Amino acid sequence: MQDMSLVLFGASGDLAKRKLYPALYNLFLEGKMPPSISVVGLGRKPFSNEDFHALIKEALESFSRRDIVSSSLDEFLEKFRYCIFDATKQESYKDLQDFIETRESELNIPDNRLFYLSVAPKLVDLITTNLHKNGISQTKGWKRLIIEKPFGSDLKSAQELNAKLKEVFDEDEIFRIDHYLGKPMVQNLESLIRPNPILKSLWDHHQIANVQITASETVGVGTRAGYYDQAGAIRDMVQNHLLQLVMMTALHHPKKLSPKEIEDNKREIMESLRPVAKDEMSQHIVRGQYEAGEVEGETVKAYREEDGIDPDSNNDTFFAARLYIDNEYWKGIPFYIRTGKRMKEKSTRIVIEFKNEADETENPEEIGLVSNLLEIEINPAESVSLRVNIKDQSNEQFEPAFITFSKNPSSQPEAYERLLNDAMQGNSTYFAHWNEVELSWKWIQPILEAFEEDGLPLNFYPAGSTGPEASHKLLETDGFNWW
Amino acid sequence: MQDMSLVLFGASGDLAKRKLYPALYNLFLEGKMPPSISVVGLGRKPFSNEDFHALIKEALESFSRRDIVSSSLDEFLEKFRYCIFDATKQESYKDLQDFIETRESELNIPDNRLFYLSVAPKLVDLITTNLHKNGISQTKGWKRLIIEKPFGSDLKSAQELNAKLKEVFDEDEIFRIDHYLGKPMVQNLESLIRPNPILKSLWDHHQIANVQITASETVGVGTRAGYYDQAGAIRDMVQNHLLQLVMMTALHHPKKLSPKEIEDNKREIMESLRPVAKDEMSQHIVRGQYEAGEVEGETVKAYREEDGIDPDSNNDTFFAARLYIDNEYWKGIPFYIRTGKRMKEKSTRIVIEFKNEADETENPEEIGLVSNLLEIEINPAESVSLRVNIKDQSNEQFEPAFITFSKNPSSQPEAYERLLNDAMQGNSTYFAHWNEVELSWKWIQPILEAFEEDGLPLNFYPAGSTGPEASHKLLETDGFNWW
Repeated sequence: MQDMSLVLFGASGDLAKRKLYPALYNLFLEGKMPPSISVVGLGRKPFSNEDFHALIKEALESFSRRDIVSSSLDEFLEKFRYCIFDATKQESYKDLQDFIETRESELNIPDNRLFYLSVAPKLVDLITTNLHKNGISQTKGWKRLIIEKPFGSDLKSAQELNAKLKEVFDEDEIFRIDHYLGKPMVQNLESLIRPNPILKSLWDHHQIANVQITASETVGVGTRAGYYDQAGAIRDMVQNHLLQLVMMTALHHPKKLSPKEIEDNKREIMESLRPVAKDEMSQHIVRGQYEAGEVEGETVKAYREEDGIDPDSNNDTFFAARLYIDNEYWKGIPFYIRTGKRMKEKSTRIVIEFKNEADETENPEEIGLVSNLLEIEINPAESVSLRVNIKDQSNEQFEPAFITFSKNPSSQPEAYERLLNDAMQGNSTYFAHWNEVELSWKWIQPILEAFEEDGLPLNFYPAGSTGPEASHKLLETDGFNWW
Repeated sequence: MQDMSLVLFGASGDLAKRKLYPALYNLFLEGKMPPSISVVGLGRKPFSNEDFHALIKEALESFSRRDIVSSSLDEFLEKFRYCIFDATKQESYKDLQDFIETRESELNIPDNRLFYLSVAPKLVDLITTNLHKNGISQTKGWKRLIIEKPFGSDLKSAQELNAKLKEVFDEDEIFRIDHYLGKPMVQNLESLIRPNPILKSLWDHHQIANVQITASETVGVGTRAGYYDQAGAIRDMVQNHLLQLVMMTALHHPKKLSPKEIEDNKREIMESLRPVAKDEMSQHIVRGQYEAGEVEGETVKAYREEDGIDPDSNNDTFFAARLYIDNEYWKGIPFYIRTGKRMKEKSTRIVIEFKNEADETENPEEIGLVSNLLEIEINPAESVSLRVNIKDQSNEQFEPAFITFSKNPSSQPEAYERLLNDAMQGNSTYFAHWNEVELSWKWIQPILEAFEEDGLPLNFYPAGSTGPEASHKLLETDGFNWW
């Protein structure tokens, strides 16, 4: 890996402390850092380097998946310098350019620069524009940009933001984080299916009855009320994470695909995603909002009673939809997606339901026959299980049996470790490419408009439930149910 | 179930004691006997009924899978009567007719008669002819015949035997026992594959690379030297058991098949079994004989040194072959079968090897990719396992993982319980039908002739090994190996 500077905007923020420092530290312990790296932390607070190192150390103590190795901690911290920075001030950029260059000389490293923007969305184009204007992004070495969600709040704003970024960075220099793509089970999907013909040959509409993708949380809106009440589940979870999971599930791997082929295939899947017509929207889309209820034994407030939420808010905290991918592999096969806050359980998973193979002469229910299922648990557990029908010899009935055939060891690299490592190496396979982002917004846009025009009912559900009744009806109509 | 007489020839024999009485007793405990049944045991020894009951009780104590329930034992034994019998004497048949009729009157049951011939092969047609001549098999009720292997010693003798039986019994009245067909895992094959599309859709030459059927024993020739040295592995195991396992594996179950459809499909499979041309025999067939060696830690003699074996015997104690079924499902897919005495392990199993799905760009061995396997353990363990490729996150290599998804409970009905129960009900699904037997002998016949003409080398293998080297070469030629 080439030596570089990692310039981190938002160095005292929550993401940096919870995810980025622990990720960098674990990469360091695994020898997955460049030989020389200058990490420049930026923030508005007047920290000394010592303050900064103390903050990082505290973050590692709280959040690193591996214990701190005291003998090498100083070596790790020594890579970090703090630079006070105000994104709205021109002097800050000049100072930053000097700061980065000074460290590059000190370490005698080339001007390869990786900019990580962990900042409020409104600051993103301001910063990138000024990186360019001040020559910070004009390097002889490479330059890369990592940005966090949200990427726009609708199709137009996303396109505008992208146009701004494009003035400074090429598409292959932009790494849009979708941390779901960094999760081990998502990255494992390909290595699970392709080398196992018993799965690979089943991976299309001939054998699959439907695909179900669930990302449910038990937490409520928490401290993000200001953002969330504007964004809703549809922007916070669906446009990015759930649609990325749809793409990753629908990918075909006849052979090992190159990063470019994966990108192309994901784009093709999004191009084949059937748009939801406005007059059919209520048949395919369910939105919901949680009421008061009980989650994991505790009484919790309704969404409208949460701090910082408009008491008349019609914002969605739950979203479910039926999708169709109109390509040769998936024609006619529904993909059901759902996400919600204050649900009964915390679980992100993909369930593939295979067609039920009882024949006409038999009543499947009577003899106990159920569909084969492939269940891929992404979070918090990580496992792959298959549900098969096994005959009980004593009564000639079939019994479903769940067999788990892949379980990840408990200490897996965190999503951010993988993603930071990939970005440092310039590998964008598991990042959201612009085509995907734009096509996602294009699919979402009419739904956003229907929400705004009150074209879709808001279904209330008690906190701690499995979501509104309408979400279950969505599948029952097709003869299925959520797994 | 209808009331009946079960007339057992060979009532003091080994099979009766080890298998038949325990089987009848367990059926009794499960309420799977007719309300009234007369069991008439026949033998040359002058037993009283008390002697006979004592013999049965002792057999149950030694061999029943369930403990004896003392409160109901007398009720069970009371069904049994002993009748002295010499198959070569006409008076014996007259006495037998009287004996059976007397018990039928006593119990007030119809003259439904099930004749079980557990006798030397040479007595079979003598007995059936005389059953007819003396009116014993001429009943107003139904009559059925159960016979044990061997069914002939070559094509001609099998046809002659069958012609004799046909003079007295119709095909649907003849139940030819192949106890491999009574084994739970063999009977479960259909209920394993059909209701699980993840297996069913894989069940043909598109996905399967080869099928391997192994029946290996650790024992030597034991006390059966006289019979075995004439029969060899080919008659003792291949013509019947292994070819039946080939048929059961190759069966297709698009829907639940009726017994008649199963019979038809098995016949069609045997009709599609490619004959082995004489000049190609050594390419497809391997015969072997064990030498001295060590089995499970004990030094054992060579076959030629065993008691009762001709010291120059060229008899086969090992047989392996490559078979092709030239029908739409299995074209081009090799079925490898092997059986041997004094092998390293006792195991009867079917292994399905799926095609390896590494693509051209990868070296499967380098990245640790192996073929998917489905392993069906029939004996002594009973289980179904799947071997899949799982990626090891730490080194990006694939590791094979065996997952067991069906394991029978330890106390399963014995093969003879199922088969006796079926025969009492007149269900011949899991018996060897004449078409199958004749077609098996037709396939075997040229191989027998090649053996006699010394047209095939006899390969020696050390006791306790996995058989002769030539058996491994058989698969290596095709790029495979025995699992």
